[in-house]
Amino acid sequence: MMRTRAAVAVAAGKPLEVMEVNLEGPRAGEVLVEIKATGLCHTDEFTRSGDDPEGIFPAILGHEGAGVVIEVGEGVTSLEVGDHVIPLYTPECRECEYCLNPKTNLCQSIRETQGQGLLPDGSTRFSMLDGTPIHHYMGCSTFANHTVVPEIALAKVRSDAPFDKICYIGCGVTTGIGAVINTAKVEIGSTGIVFGLGGIGLNVIQGLRLAGADQIVGVDLNPSKVEMATKFGMTDFVNPADVEGDLVAHLVELTGGGADYTFDATGNVNVMRTALEAAHKGWGESIIIGVAPAGAEISTRPFQLVTGRSWRGTAFGGASGRTDVPKIVDWYMDGKIEIDPMITHKLSLDQINEGFDLMHEGKSIRAVVEF
Amino acid sequence: MMRTRAAVAVAAGKPLEVMEVNLEGPRAGEVLVEIKATGLCHTDEFTRSGDDPEGIFPAILGHEGAGVVIEVGEGVTSLEVGDHVIPLYTPECRECEYCLNPKTNLCQSIRETQGQGLLPDGSTRFSMLDGTPIHHYMGCSTFANHTVVPEIALAKVRSDAPFDKICYIGCGVTTGIGAVINTAKVEIGSTGIVFGLGGIGLNVIQGLRLAGADQIVGVDLNPSKVEMATKFGMTDFVNPADVEGDLVAHLVELTGGGADYTFDATGNVNVMRTALEAAHKGWGESIIIGVAPAGAEISTRPFQLVTGRSWRGTAFGGASGRTDVPKIVDWYMDGKIEIDPMITHKLSLDQINEGFDLMHEGKSIRAVVEF
Repeated sequence: MMRTRAAVAVAAGKPLEVMEVNLEGPRAGEVLVEIKATGLCHTDEFTRSGDDPEGIFPAILGHEGAGVVIEVGEGVTSLEVGDHVIPLYTPECRECEYCLNPKTNLCQSIRETQGQGLLPDGSTRFSMLDGTPIHHYMGCSTFANHTVVPEIALAKVRSDAPFDKICYIGCGVTTGIGAVINTAKVEIGSTGIVFGLGGIGLNVIQGLRLAGADQIVGVDLNPSKVEMATKFGMTDFVNPADVEGDLVAHLVELTGGGADYTFDATGNVNVMRTALEAAHKGWGESIIIGVAPAGAEISTRPFQLVTGRSWRGTAFGGASGRTDVPKIVDWYMDGKIEIDPMITHKLSLDQINEGFDLMHEGKSIRAVVEF
Repeated sequence: MMRTRAAVAVAAGKPLEVMEVNLEGPRAGEVLVEIKATGLCHTDEFTRSGDDPEGIFPAILGHEGAGVVIEVGEGVTSLEVGDHVIPLYTPECRECEYCLNPKTNLCQSIRETQGQGLLPDGSTRFSMLDGTPIHHYMGCSTFANHTVVPEIALAKVRSDAPFDKICYIGCGVTTGIGAVINTAKVEIGSTGIVFGLGGIGLNVIQGLRLAGADQIVGVDLNPSKVEMATKFGMTDFVNPADVEGDLVAHLVELTGGGADYTFDATGNVNVMRTALEAAHKGWGESIIIGVAPAGAEISTRPFQLVTGRSWRGTAFGGASGRTDVPKIVDWYMDGKIEIDPMITHKLSLDQINEGFDLMHEGKSIRAVVEF
C-alpha cells in the first residue's frame, strides 16, 4: 500500500477534489504505473458532470495518460520496470473472440469489471484515507500520480517520446486518426468531411491528410477553429450558420456529389444525420465518432442506405492499442503527424478543474496535466 | 410502329387493363425485345396501388422479364436479333462515374429520364391506340409482349435457359443473392439472419447457403414459410409472435452473440432496426433490401454503430447487370442455385390482376406471366 495524489470525482456534477489517496500494489497480471502526464477529454467531463448514466462515484477519472512502469505484478511478462507506457481504455488481450477477429478492436476480456469501475478481479486498488474504496475509470484512472492497470491495457512505447505530448495518443489522436485509417480505410485521392473541429475532429483532419485525401472539408459553428484546422490539412471550411438553404445540399455541391467519407466528431445526433446524407450516393461512408447524450437516437430515410451510403461507428479509432499505439508514437516522433500545436494548455494537478473550464469555454484543444 | 398487347396501369389504385397498344420501333441505342415471361414483384404493386409517390400514369409496369431481341436500333453493337436478354432496371453503361467505381452498381447514365417514365431521349415508345403516350416503368415495362429498352439496360444471356424461370433473375433472385455476395460479401462460416421470407428473403437464404454460411436464421410472422425456406437452406426459424420478451435478445442468444450479417427483406422500418441490433457487436453488418413506405425513417441509438455494427443498403443486389446477370443464369443452369420451386404460379397476361391478388393473400412466392 502506498499513497499518491489524485483528482477524485467525489460525486456527479461536483468539481474534482485533489487529495491524497491510498493505492494498493499490483496484483497478478497488473502493473503499477507512475503517470507523468494526462490529457483532459470530453468523456471525462461527460462522466464528471453527471450526464453519463453509467457514471460511478467516487472515482478517479482520466483515460488519456502516459507514464512509466514502477512495479509489475505476478505473471506479467510483456512489461518491466522502467518501460514507458500508455494506458488503454480499450485493452488488447490477443486471446478473446474479439481480439482474434480482424474486423474489430473491441477486446471484451475485462469489459464487465471495467464498466463497473473495478479491476478484473472485481476490486479497486484506490481508496480514501478513511478506507472508502474509490472506483477506477475506463480501466485507466490517469488523474492520479500513480495508478494500477492490467497488463493487457498498457501499450509499451519508445522511451524518448515526451509524455506531455504522447499522452494525447491515449485517446484523441488515436481516435481521430484511427477513424480514418482503421475504420474508414480512406484511400488516396478521397474526399472527406469532418463535422466538429475539436480535439477529435482535428485529428480526423490530419488523419485524412496522412491518408492522402484530396479534399478535406471542416464544418464547425466556431470560425476561430479555422486557423488550426487549416494547419492540420483542412482545405475547405463551412460554417453552417453562413449557409443559406440546406446544409446537405451545400456540402454535396462543394464535394462534387457528396464526400467519399464523412465523420461526426460532435456527438450531436442531428449532425450525425447530416454527415450521413452528405456522403456520396453509391459509395459514401459516414463514421460516427462522437458520443451522443443518453437516449438520443439517429434517424434517416432507409433510401439513403439503399442508394449506397453506409453508416458506421468507431471506438478508439478501431485501434488495437498494444499493437497500434506504439506505431502512432513513432509517427509522431518521425514527424508524420503533429501533436504539439494541439496541446494548448499545461496545468498542474491542482489546476485540473480549470482545464474543464477551458474546455467549456472552447478555449482549449487539449489541456494536459503534468505531474 | 407496331401493335402489341400489354397490361396498362391506367391510374393509381386501379387494376391493370389488358389492351392493345402502339409501340414504336427502337431508336438509336435502343432494342426491341419480345418479352416471353415476366414476374410480378411487390415493387410493381407498390406503384400500381398508388403508394409510390413517384408513380406516373398511365404506364406499363413490370421489371422482371426475359425475352428475345427482335430488332436493334442504330449504333447498337453488343446485341443482335435473336439474342436472349433480361431487361435491367439498373443499367450498366460502363462509362459513367458510377460504373467505373467498383464500390457501386448504381449506373446513373439514364437515371433521370428513367425516373420520369421515359426512354433516354425523353420520349415514350408506347401509346394508346388513340395516341395518348404511355409511360415506361423502371426502364423495362415487361408487362407487355413487346417493349423497347436501351442497349445498356439489357443483359445478354445463354439461349438454353427457360424464360419462365430466368425472368426472376431480373429482380428477385439477383437482389437476394447479390445482397449476400456483392453487398455483404459474406464469408464461409458466417451466421446470417433474414427478416421476411418472401420472394427476396428466400433468395437471401439461398445466397447465404451458396456463400457457405454455417447458420441461416429466418424470421417471419407466417409459419407457412418454413417449409420452403428450409428447402433453400434455412437452419433456424423464428416467429416473432412466438418469442416471449425481446426479439433482439432472443436472436442474439440464438446466434451466439448476434449474427455476422442480417438482412431486412420486409421494407418495415421497425424490422430494419431489429435487424441492425441483432447484428454482432464489433463486426455485424445489417443490409437493408426492402423498400420502405414514403416518408418512413429508420432510427437507433448511435451506440449500436459505435460498438461496431454497420448499417448498409443494397439495390439490385449490388449487381452490375450486364456483367453479373449472365453469371447468375449460369449458376441456375449449373444447379448452383434453385429457382423452380419459387415460381409458384403461372398466369396468362389476361390473368395478371389475379397475380396481385395471390401476392396480397401471401399465397405466391412468384407468379409469372407467360406470353
